Amino acid sequence: MIVELIAVGTELLLGNIVNTNAAYLSERCADLGLSCFYQSVVGDNEERLANVIKTALERSDIVILSGGLGPTADDLTKETAAKVMGRKLEMHEPSRRTIEEFFQRRNLELTENNWKQAMVPEGAIAVDNENGTAPGVIIEGEGKKVILLPGPPNELIPMFEKSIIPYLSGEKNGTIYSRTVKICGVGESKVETVVKDLIDGQSNPTIAPYAKNSEVHLRVTASAADEGEAQKLLTPVLDELMGRFGSNIYTMDTNVTLEKAVADLLEERHLTVSTAESCTGGMLAARLINVPGISNTYKSGYITYSNKAKRKVLSVKKSLLEKKGAVSEETAVAMAKGAAAISKADVAVAVTGIAGPDGGTKEKPVGLVYIACNVCGKVTVKKYHFSGNRAKIRETTVSNALILMRHCILKHDEETAFGKK
Amino acid sequence: MIVELIAVGTELLLGNIVNTNAAYLSERCADLGLSCFYQSVVGDNEERLANVIKTALERSDIVILSGGLGPTADDLTKETAAKVMGRKLEMHEPSRRTIEEFFQRRNLELTENNWKQAMVPEGAIAVDNENGTAPGVIIEGEGKKVILLPGPPNELIPMFEKSIIPYLSGEKNGTIYSRTVKICGVGESKVETVVKDLIDGQSNPTIAPYAKNSEVHLRVTASAADEGEAQKLLTPVLDELMGRFGSNIYTMDTNVTLEKAVADLLEERHLTVSTAESCTGGMLAARLINVPGISNTYKSGYITYSNKAKRKVLSVKKSLLEKKGAVSEETAVAMAKGAAAISKADVAVAVTGIAGPDGGTKEKPVGLVYIACNVCGKVTVKKYHFSGNRAKIRETTVSNALILMRHCILKHDEETAFGKK
Repeated sequence: MIVELIAVGTELLLGNIVNTNAAYLSERCADLGLSCFYQSVVGDNEERLANVIKTALERSDIVILSGGLGPTADDLTKETAAKVMGRKLEMHEPSRRTIEEFFQRRNLELTENNWKQAMVPEGAIAVDNENGTAPGVIIEGEGKKVILLPGPPNELIPMFEKSIIPYLSGEKNGTIYSRTVKICGVGESKVETVVKDLIDGQSNPTIAPYAKNSEVHLRVTASAADEGEAQKLLTPVLDELMGRFGSNIYTMDTNVTLEKAVADLLEERHLTVSTAESCTGGMLAARLINVPGISNTYKSGYITYSNKAKRKVLSVKKSLLEKKGAVSEETAVAMAKGAAAISKADVAVAVTGIAGPDGGTKEKPVGLVYIACNVCGKVTVKKYHFSGNRAKIRETTVSNALILMRHCILKHDEETAFGKK
Repeated sequence: MIVELIAVGTELLLGNIVNTNAAYLSERCADLGLSCFYQSVVGDNEERLANVIKTALERSDIVILSGGLGPTADDLTKETAAKVMGRKLEMHEPSRRTIEEFFQRRNLELTENNWKQAMVPEGAIAVDNENGTAPGVIIEGEGKKVILLPGPPNELIPMFEKSIIPYLSGEKNGTIYSRTVKICGVGESKVETVVKDLIDGQSNPTIAPYAKNSEVHLRVTASAADEGEAQKLLTPVLDELMGRFGSNIYTMDTNVTLEKAVADLLEERHLTVSTAESCTGGMLAARLINVPGISNTYKSGYITYSNKAKRKVLSVKKSLLEKKGAVSEETAVAMAKGAAAISKADVAVAVTGIAGPDGGTKEKPVGLVYIACNVCGKVTVKKYHFSGNRAKIRETTVSNALILMRHCILKHDEETAFGKK
């Protein structure tokens, strides 16, 4: 089955926003085994929009439109799609009530134009929008499907996950069920080598690798008559991957991020944490504090970008900084020790490096980074060479600090026999 | 003139990357006064790509393609565009030499397939690529222009800025010259009201507002026979905007960010800075440290997410935290005073707030934030109500902390008579 994406909105044509919906929808459609050959963007103009929809219907089986479902006069995706499909619009009572309740709950005044959002093409399926007022719409006809979704990602994504994926899966006479195996501490090409035989021999489930900031995600997708059947297909593959990657798998849950996995490890072990950052200047702390509820675990953080701050705040010795330099194994270790001493945290992680663009030398080039992790007094330090611009180097450093923390906490488990009762 | 964008690449159709080139090119084309009605994405497939190019040429004057100029067999944008335009490919000697030098300089082995990148359609213009090996290409014919650009943004953007904008401007028998007036501390609708008469009455220069994170940018674009003429047209408009927005304009330089503007203010005044963060957990420090060379100015930062850390690290009194709460005007002030005292920095900024999703109450809802800025002992504190999810609230908080810092430093100028000699 061939799917085609059409994003509707003048703000996309003016470059005011980036079309992240297309990336999201493409990835999810690929997971569903649908081929996407074309994407387009068109403005809120009836004639041009109608032409784009007609072209898409000629060459694709499923056309997914996003945007232009709002209450204002220039939102005309639904009206245009209905016309192309030869349907009239009619009031959809449940959507009407939802809109009414939405406004009542928020104490907002409901203006006349909002009723437009409750109009649905005759014979079409209205799809609940739990995060906004415009329902989604599915129009079926002449062997084709036209799916209309709201433009805001915080409405589009939940609607697609909850209603459109099951709908499209049903189309294939079964269920599509996928799990994301998230791997850290192993490079992309290594992961691909390790799973090459599984990918080459795959049919159902399928395995697709995605590299994202120092992590590799393997999406494992099964298609089956029902969820129980899908689980039966998935389990041996997930077990096989667990056998091959072991503790480098930090989660099999799509919603768990690396920082969340690290925060969970800390919380389960009742370990507190503090951070000491030079080149990343707070980015590592910020990423840990992305995790809601981390306040029990996160003690305090220190940003010591200058040498003076490393000395004053973290008690790094002046002689050490002069002899070894701020970017050195020894300084990273001293920072991790200093941070543990003043914060009294169980785990202290320290980062020092050269993010550029200036400050690099032949011996210590831009991209050289040391990360030290102090778990209950035992310090592990690693040297890295990262590439890219200042922002990229800092981002990669943060990911690798989280990976090192995770590694050191798991290592500490062996010594404390955590979990082995 | 109508422009159309085509991005070529299977990785876009699979959702592996987001089409940021489209947003960049759309914005710049709008600046040039070109109308963009359609954008599309198509894979590295000759037949489908040829059809998309043909359709674009039927309805638009200028077609800009990005991606698919690389050395591998599946890069076929140039070959396909040449075929559609009825041109043969021929070796372009200067590009050949550039590629040779590029590999020599980097000590890389030059494989046979790289010569493919030096082939250019007959009669076409080859455009220098200063950041990669694939030259850009301009094919003119039958009143249309087809422009081929490399896919990586770090190659595409400099090429477009340096060569394509002058080329497209020349098409309009003159120069397009634009300045970005960046405004902070004034809301979007207020800015639009203040410049409404200018926008309504505009012809040349034109003024276009863009809202970005708590800032509003006004892009002022003049078209003229040459740069001197354009400057003459721009100056009175820029002066007028300066008169209307005054010190709320933090720069008229496209490349200067808000954090860079604040860092420059600090450096010019030889003021040092430190940060104390609760809900933003390092994001404010990270944004300041985005600015290369800030190490002279930035003294140290403290992440005090828990109450205990606020007490231990910043000496916020336990009784104050108990009486007023961690998210209060008084705590923000105490944090800013504590940070200044321990860091000995001239400027200390402190942030405390409720980023959610949990932790909100009726009196102190999610989104309530206090920011305090201590400049040489004088503390200013402000209360904010931000909306959105956890990430959005934290991001907005950081922008507003920078805006408040800027405001307080300029206020301090009045007292010290900085700049008035």
